[in-house]
Amino acid sequence: MAEITCPTFVIDKEICLRNIERMAQKAQQHNLRFRPHFKTHQSAKIGEWFRMYGVEAITVSSVQMASYFAAHDWDDITIAFPVNIHEISEINRLADNIKLNILIENREAAEVLAKTIRHPLGIFLKIDTGYNRTGILPSRTGLMDNIIDIISGNKKLKFKGLLTHSGHTYTARSTNEIFSRHFDAMLKMKSLKQKYKAKFPNIEMSIGDTPSATLCTNFNGVDEIRPGNFIFYDLMQQNLGVCTFDDIAVRLICPVVAKHLSRNEIVIYGGAVHLSKDSIININGKRMYGRIVIHKNDKKELLEPLNYVANLSQEHGILKVTQNQFKNFKVGDFVEIIPVHSCLTANLARKYITTEGEVIETINS
Amino acid sequence: MAEITCPTFVIDKEICLRNIERMAQKAQQHNLRFRPHFKTHQSAKIGEWFRMYGVEAITVSSVQMASYFAAHDWDDITIAFPVNIHEISEINRLADNIKLNILIENREAAEVLAKTIRHPLGIFLKIDTGYNRTGILPSRTGLMDNIIDIISGNKKLKFKGLLTHSGHTYTARSTNEIFSRHFDAMLKMKSLKQKYKAKFPNIEMSIGDTPSATLCTNFNGVDEIRPGNFIFYDLMQQNLGVCTFDDIAVRLICPVVAKHLSRNEIVIYGGAVHLSKDSIININGKRMYGRIVIHKNDKKELLEPLNYVANLSQEHGILKVTQNQFKNFKVGDFVEIIPVHSCLTANLARKYITTEGEVIETINS
Repeated sequence: MAEITCPTFVIDKEICLRNIERMAQKAQQHNLRFRPHFKTHQSAKIGEWFRMYGVEAITVSSVQMASYFAAHDWDDITIAFPVNIHEISEINRLADNIKLNILIENREAAEVLAKTIRHPLGIFLKIDTGYNRTGILPSRTGLMDNIIDIISGNKKLKFKGLLTHSGHTYTARSTNEIFSRHFDAMLKMKSLKQKYKAKFPNIEMSIGDTPSATLCTNFNGVDEIRPGNFIFYDLMQQNLGVCTFDDIAVRLICPVVAKHLSRNEIVIYGGAVHLSKDSIININGKRMYGRIVIHKNDKKELLEPLNYVANLSQEHGILKVTQNQFKNFKVGDFVEIIPVHSCLTANLARKYITTEGEVIETINS
Repeated sequence: MAEITCPTFVIDKEICLRNIERMAQKAQQHNLRFRPHFKTHQSAKIGEWFRMYGVEAITVSSVQMASYFAAHDWDDITIAFPVNIHEISEINRLADNIKLNILIENREAAEVLAKTIRHPLGIFLKIDTGYNRTGILPSRTGLMDNIIDIISGNKKLKFKGLLTHSGHTYTARSTNEIFSRHFDAMLKMKSLKQKYKAKFPNIEMSIGDTPSATLCTNFNGVDEIRPGNFIFYDLMQQNLGVCTFDDIAVRLICPVVAKHLSRNEIVIYGGAVHLSKDSIININGKRMYGRIVIHKNDKKELLEPLNYVANLSQEHGILKVTQNQFKNFKVGDFVEIIPVHSCLTANLARKYITTEGEVIETINS
């Protein structure tokens, strides 16, 4: 801490390890392969922490990230993003060296792959179980059959199974709704798995999101979970009821540079280029870009939600605070901001520092 | 273009040069020092383009950026951010080597500076002319006097003048409102300049924002302008009426990876980690993260606003398009996204490519 002068992304390694351990144990209890998503941390060093808990297979969200982790000795990687056919040469290079899986959700990409792949490549069909971002709707089994036919045209392509990301759990209004969306997604996936099981006895079902992987306990028919955010968690997850504040492993440490009594505002060095502009709605109905932890009498204190990051420009953060708390901020103090979306905040940091002072390099270093 | 496979930030150098030339000429006509803000591009190579138009002094928004440009032979730099006293050693190092100006807006920072500065440093008082982000309210001349007294206690600190950033022009609802906010800010600044002129005959008035620097023609009493965004412009500026689409120099080129007819949605590889989550409100009342340019019959076509970037996750962008346009998107096509806020989009790119294929390194490369 003594060396921090600028906005700095700090992670608590102990909390990270606890979060990993808990998820690894849960996967083991339910007999699931734990293939964590590494897009959250994007760091080879943090990747090593996962190996301590038996993790051997990972998920990433880009070919570039797959190349980075392959270069750091990960040899079983799923790129959980609809395949971008312009990256076929790097996909071929990777497929020649590691066990690589990619997602397909349309004929066009399947046809290009069937023509151009030269090394063994696992294929998951991306299924849309309700998030409505990407994927094939469960009713469109004709399209699934078509794609499976196309990829069967190249012996290098191996149909591995069905993959979904129930990202609509992030917009659930209650933990009950997370349960019901997860359950609904599982039913859809199980029914598809059943349909293809006769022809593909080893067909796998892979599911992804942190909310359901954290909260739910019914994984009937699931073979693999791919949560990512859980290693850090964040304000969005806390707000959803998925984690507690004690589970959040990350903070952006920011210097206070100005105070404005007439508006009860504190200006910090720490803006959109540090936190990202992802927001949630605060209890006062306003957008919130982070919660505030201050140091008071040698103790840390998480302030009530009416003290919050209310605005961000490129380098400035504006904290709205209560009249009562205003006096607890001084120019030159450091405050800790709990980010709304740790994946985007981490992506903006070139390096992280642990609370013990260890520097963590990332793909962006 | 032939080598692009992933989301790529492309800039049109010709448009950039035209934008720089126009602003440089305007500054010259009005007898203003042109001290452009380099936080928008953060690139030493692009900095060189400014030198062709006589620019010798620049603005940046962090000490780190000042160090970067000082290392690239810029020797007159204003750090337009309330001074962060934890960076005093780097400020001292820079002040020993170049003409450096910083902003002060409170006694606390002034006192630390007066005790710790060892090299000549220019001081601007940051004035809040209505944006209400940072700065001293014009009525608080007692505080200004105080700060000037404190900095006079160290002979290395030189009071240079008054600086404002009328960022509230960005939320104007009409160009008329930009004019009136600019005029109001100028009146406040002129009156303060007048007050301090007797004691500081060389006192300067520095103003900043791209909307007023682009549109307004009354710079009575102003000594310096510091716009930054104008080199690229973006959708936010176009939407404000500050520039036309022809003035926007930047695009994010993104591959199409999926199509969803039932929702009239196109999925692109290009998400929050490429565009940033800054948004404006589209004509349909929804958040918009970018406008779309497609290639059709070897021509570029800017689509109507009901075709737009409607959602972003980490790597995915979701385009909502009209039924009519849906057929014009094919998996594997490249589309061009006009970003809402070019500063944040540029910051997320490690490098830029010009439309002629030249690679532009940045502070993030």
